[in-house]
Amino acid sequence: MPIVDADGATGANADETLSATVVGGSGFAGGELLRLLAGHPNFDLAGATSREYAGKSVGSVHPNLRGTDLRFSDPADLDSVDVLFAATPHGVSMEQIDDFYEAADTVVDLSADFRLNTEAQYEEWYDGHDAPEYLDEAVYALPELHREELPGADLVAAGGCNATATILGLYPLFEAGILDGDEQIVADVKVGSSEGGASASKAGSHAERSGVVRPYAPTGHRHEAEIEQELGASVSFSAHAVDMVRGAAATCHVFPDEPVSNGDLWSAFRGAYDEEPFVRLQSGGSGVYRYPEPKAVAGTNYAEVGFELDPGNERVVVFSAIDNLVKGTAGQAVHAANVALGLEETAGLDFQGLHPVGSP
Amino acid sequence: MPIVDADGATGANADETLSATVVGGSGFAGGELLRLLAGHPNFDLAGATSREYAGKSVGSVHPNLRGTDLRFSDPADLDSVDVLFAATPHGVSMEQIDDFYEAADTVVDLSADFRLNTEAQYEEWYDGHDAPEYLDEAVYALPELHREELPGADLVAAGGCNATATILGLYPLFEAGILDGDEQIVADVKVGSSEGGASASKAGSHAERSGVVRPYAPTGHRHEAEIEQELGASVSFSAHAVDMVRGAAATCHVFPDEPVSNGDLWSAFRGAYDEEPFVRLQSGGSGVYRYPEPKAVAGTNYAEVGFELDPGNERVVVFSAIDNLVKGTAGQAVHAANVALGLEETAGLDFQGLHPVGSP
Amino acid sequence: MPIVDADGATGANADETLSATVVGGSGFAGGELLRLLAGHPNFDLAGATSREYAGKSVGSVHPNLRGTDLRFSDPADLDSVDVLFAATPHGVSMEQIDDFYEAADTVVDLSADFRLNTEAQYEEWYDGHDAPEYLDEAVYALPELHREELPGADLVAAGGCNATATILGLYPLFEAGILDGDEQIVADVKVGSSEGGASASKAGSHAERSGVVRPYAPTGHRHEAEIEQELGASVSFSAHAVDMVRGAAATCHVFPDEPVSNGDLWSAFRGAYDEEPFVRLQSGGSGVYRYPEPKAVAGTNYAEVGFELDPGNERVVVFSAIDNLVKGTAGQAVHAANVALGLEETAGLDFQGLHPVGSP
Amino acid sequence: MPIVDADGATGANADETLSATVVGGSGFAGGELLRLLAGHPNFDLAGATSREYAGKSVGSVHPNLRGTDLRFSDPADLDSVDVLFAATPHGVSMEQIDDFYEAADTVVDLSADFRLNTEAQYEEWYDGHDAPEYLDEAVYALPELHREELPGADLVAAGGCNATATILGLYPLFEAGILDGDEQIVADVKVGSSEGGASASKAGSHAERSGVVRPYAPTGHRHEAEIEQELGASVSFSAHAVDMVRGAAATCHVFPDEPVSNGDLWSAFRGAYDEEPFVRLQSGGSGVYRYPEPKAVAGTNYAEVGFELDPGNERVVVFSAIDNLVKGTAGQAVHAANVALGLEETAGLDFQGLHPVGSP
Repeated sequence: MPIVDADGATGANADETLSATVVGGSGFAGGELLRLLAGHPNFDLAGATSREYAGKSVGSVHPNLRGTDLRFSDPADLDSVDVLFAATPHGVSMEQIDDFYEAADTVVDLSADFRLNTEAQYEEWYDGHDAPEYLDEAVYALPELHREELPGADLVAAGGCNATATILGLYPLFEAGILDGDEQIVADVKVGSSEGGASASKAGSHAERSGVVRPYAPTGHRHEAEIEQELGASVSFSAHAVDMVRGAAATCHVFPDEPVSNGDLWSAFRGAYDEEPFVRLQSGGSGVYRYPEPKAVAGTNYAEVGFELDPGNERVVVFSAIDNLVKGTAGQAVHAANVALGLEETAGLDFQGLHPVGSP
Repeated sequence: MPIVDADGATGANADETLSATVVGGSGFAGGELLRLLAGHPNFDLAGATSREYAGKSVGSVHPNLRGTDLRFSDPADLDSVDVLFAATPHGVSMEQIDDFYEAADTVVDLSADFRLNTEAQYEEWYDGHDAPEYLDEAVYALPELHREELPGADLVAAGGCNATATILGLYPLFEAGILDGDEQIVADVKVGSSEGGASASKAGSHAERSGVVRPYAPTGHRHEAEIEQELGASVSFSAHAVDMVRGAAATCHVFPDEPVSNGDLWSAFRGAYDEEPFVRLQSGGSGVYRYPEPKAVAGTNYAEVGFELDPGNERVVVFSAIDNLVKGTAGQAVHAANVALGLEETAGLDFQGLHPVGSP
Repeated sequence: MPIVDADGATGANADETLSATVVGGSGFAGGELLRLLAGHPNFDLAGATSREYAGKSVGSVHPNLRGTDLRFSDPADLDSVDVLFAATPHGVSMEQIDDFYEAADTVVDLSADFRLNTEAQYEEWYDGHDAPEYLDEAVYALPELHREELPGADLVAAGGCNATATILGLYPLFEAGILDGDEQIVADVKVGSSEGGASASKAGSHAERSGVVRPYAPTGHRHEAEIEQELGASVSFSAHAVDMVRGAAATCHVFPDEPVSNGDLWSAFRGAYDEEPFVRLQSGGSGVYRYPEPKAVAGTNYAEVGFELDPGNERVVVFSAIDNLVKGTAGQAVHAANVALGLEETAGLDFQGLHPVGSP
Repeated sequence: MPIVDADGATGANADETLSATVVGGSGFAGGELLRLLAGHPNFDLAGATSREYAGKSVGSVHPNLRGTDLRFSDPADLDSVDVLFAATPHGVSMEQIDDFYEAADTVVDLSADFRLNTEAQYEEWYDGHDAPEYLDEAVYALPELHREELPGADLVAAGGCNATATILGLYPLFEAGILDGDEQIVADVKVGSSEGGASASKAGSHAERSGVVRPYAPTGHRHEAEIEQELGASVSFSAHAVDMVRGAAATCHVFPDEPVSNGDLWSAFRGAYDEEPFVRLQSGGSGVYRYPEPKAVAGTNYAEVGFELDPGNERVVVFSAIDNLVKGTAGQAVHAANVALGLEETAGLDFQGLHPVGSP
């Protein structure tokens, strides 16, 4: 009997069992998928591939999964399953999408390969696209924005972690007409080291990255493309590495053209999220944790959003916090898959997080 | 379909629903109890008390439980329940044990008040005992050592976190006769800041405690009493604060009187734990995580144990790692309650942990 | 023979020795003063006061100063000295300024009590002022802005740490006319736990503050007052606690009315700081550390500033990083005192920092 | 006027200026050497070599040295200097020792290549030795043990960081006859990530290494060789990675054959270290920092040592803490060079450390 009610809509297939595989299971996002699918009531985890670790046990790479018998297989040997989750680096899914479809009816992709709607975007922000014919059918995974389009989708594309945090923070203001896209919008984002992925790098070493506030991609971050696509407005985005492992926190500073009241803001955020099982509205209040914080959602599929009105300069500060590997990647993918496949919306995503927790 | 099989024995009452309350729910251990009980299939969480936060929402204290409607009630108003979990500071349970029994048939205590078997121990290590007549019926909670005594127990006493880590590491060596208690045994333990509890202190402030290796209680730690009780041998114990929030890691250095082989050690540890659902044997192997580590079990009820033989000086180094708030406190209590009440042994304890994770 | 040349102007009194005392020596800023003055070639540290620790050794509070014979004295017993440094909480200096002047010719205050120029500002941002007659003679300590006014000043008021980081980042843009105060200017600041001071608090405990990205004072931060005073423009300021002990990093997002080039920006920053001994211009380049970072200046009196131009949205992102306790407080005070007293400008401030360093 | 008196003996050459170069200046130890030599009153830093970064500025690798004009040169172009400091990986110095001597009269080596006295030790613990004819003339750098042998030495070999911490903790007990080498001695050492060096590795990445208590080299650590050499006794050594960047803390558990009193211990430690400028005896007392801690010595050349007697089990627990890159490597080298060359013993080593400081 959960004290926190995370139930969402229950679909027609809530009692089904579907086979699933994870392509690219040795990275951080892949590991999260394995953890979530292993505990999911509707998925039967049939396999996990890794080029680098083929033949090795999943637990030797992801120590939280020590004890399982599952071993990584070679990505060349894809068995047929109902659902294929791909957690491969950017560029792989667009190359292998035909193979993925041969192996599975439903493909859920965690890379950037199918997030954007048009080939033109990929030419502007990435190095073009190898399979543009699939872009039309791909659905951006965030159920908060695309719940109607997800059911029955064959190709689901999980959003980027920083984009997810930023979009969820700003979306209510656009929905409520408080912003219309002509304003200057600053998104100042703070991110954990797991965003850098599982590969070793000098900048990502413990000695160099501990205790940092390190600007990276202060301008021109690729996630601007999907933020603009989803919100219909351009955002001035800057990211900073800070000392945590998991988490992305977006602070958006916006200056609406028309004066806005606290009541307007509460209406906007409640209107957008009151029915959402994985968004918590957190603005002020008492105690140590008064605004959205990555720590409060670490390990979970929750996003926290909140705001504060600065009357002197007609600014609204919007806060948004997620676990980049869960709500920002693997949890978002599972959530979207649940909706796409007609399962209970919250299935497999019931972990409530920990308190206290350090660098989440 | 969990890839990690955590199933333990299933008791006769696996389908029952029992009402439960948490006395002292605002501390770190109490918060973990609330989290675990809220997700437990057999417990109906009826209430949580807090002197300091009576009337406030549970989520205002434990941000991971934001969204719940549960509010703390005054400890003076204890409703009748099937099971009462007490997470109060040392000395409270021994004073209120009669009230606890009036409210519930089964009492599970997380303090030190009923861990030791005799009044003499409390006189030696604490300030005596107010209710020594209950000491006989209390069962030390570790199922790995007391699985036979737990079923039907009215009073279950969760072990101390540091003691739990140390006991689980050394127990196989005593069971196998490799140690008999005459040897010099050093337990050098590293612990996270959550062991200090939720109260503010100068030594526990972020600025003073970050990045520390700080000896505390280098001699005379009270957990020595329960270690000696459970193992039948005295241990030279020293604790150090290190920079993590959750976790206790014990490194025990022992010098058996007789030469011992790696095979002997594997036999000892496998014999002790092969059937245990919450103990993972982790010794060597490949990858980044080769020995027991708190990070690998953060948030979970697992203990990891491992060893290495130092042939040159006839030393065995034993490693043991737990999450101090789960396996070291609240998870151990739920595990023991499951066994005591005839529920499925692993019910409510299926979280597999996260990878990567920072300071757990 | 320092490889890093930190020499600044040498004043007429470079060979003098002056007696100095620290009022309020047990806090973090006071401890930094003691460290800096103890190693300063021109100051003879005559005493340090602390209400709470009177009679105790300085090293029992500041472990880096273990070994010294100096003990805290009662603040009621102020000896006469040449220079009095006050590191007391806000409100104390304005009450005791007459006593300070009785004890010393020159007073350097590290609190907020004399930073603002007018009583009206104190009424708007604080709780008014007890000694407004001294506001006129107080000089804001930043030599980069007030080098001409400092020599001979009797009362020097060190700026706030967050204000210092923000002001130093934006100042060149105002000096060069790139900004004129009509623009929307966002200052998103990330700060370490030492800003919270040495007192214990629940929010500041290691378990609650580790790994955070925690908004605090997202609007209405008092440092806005001095930023506006020094720059002549209002800034939309928001602060976030992140996981470091020392450090303040300001990211300012500005949108100049007229298009601006990289050359314009380099000119502005070089023009402002090329002669400054304690400002390093750091924009891009190779290696792990390409922009200003608190880690790169931890323990030192340096500020690092840098910028990046975002052509798409006509935004300039300005970065600024300092050690909040040195350049943001105690080092700034010593630097200003050097200038005020005609000493060598960089005397006592030659520590070059460490690499690598963790949470600085 | 330093409040902490760090003066040591002043040699005959205290007013000389000597030219110095650093071979292998891009690693962590090399960077510390550059920092220390740049601020040293007697050394004129003539160059720094790096194979990987030849031609690049020193500040692009060591951000604390940003602003200097010094660039790395190719190690093939060694200029003649008075003193050559080598901070190259193990095995390089023994190959190039003849070149080093050609370039300089005095060689100070920070690697393991000349620490051990005999070729047999190198065959047992390493892969043999290429230049065993130099082993006789090399002096182990710790002045606390070798002050008499250092003056005039041509070849000085800095000790290993973990060995340094362990040796300094145990040395007084051997000197005082409390231990004679027949006892079982456990050294349980906790180390920071900078010990792993500047190269990138998966295990050393921030996401994997944050918050760890990770056993490494639990048996058979090579530093056992030099500990045994310096103390004349075998030690059971185990190292653990913990979450700090700088620091090594050794906790030694020893069981003297004869009963020992607190007075005996104080006599032993005072006798060994009372005259030592860089050893602080810290045992108990009040405040947050009561025992040796790496944080209290971070960035400095101090070692802190302390002890506690456990009467029940006749154990003495000895604590020792250093900054692994300073007292454990580069500072020790400079200290030994000062003694070897007849300079003031403490020259260039006067940094007192910071408070508060995070992961040092």
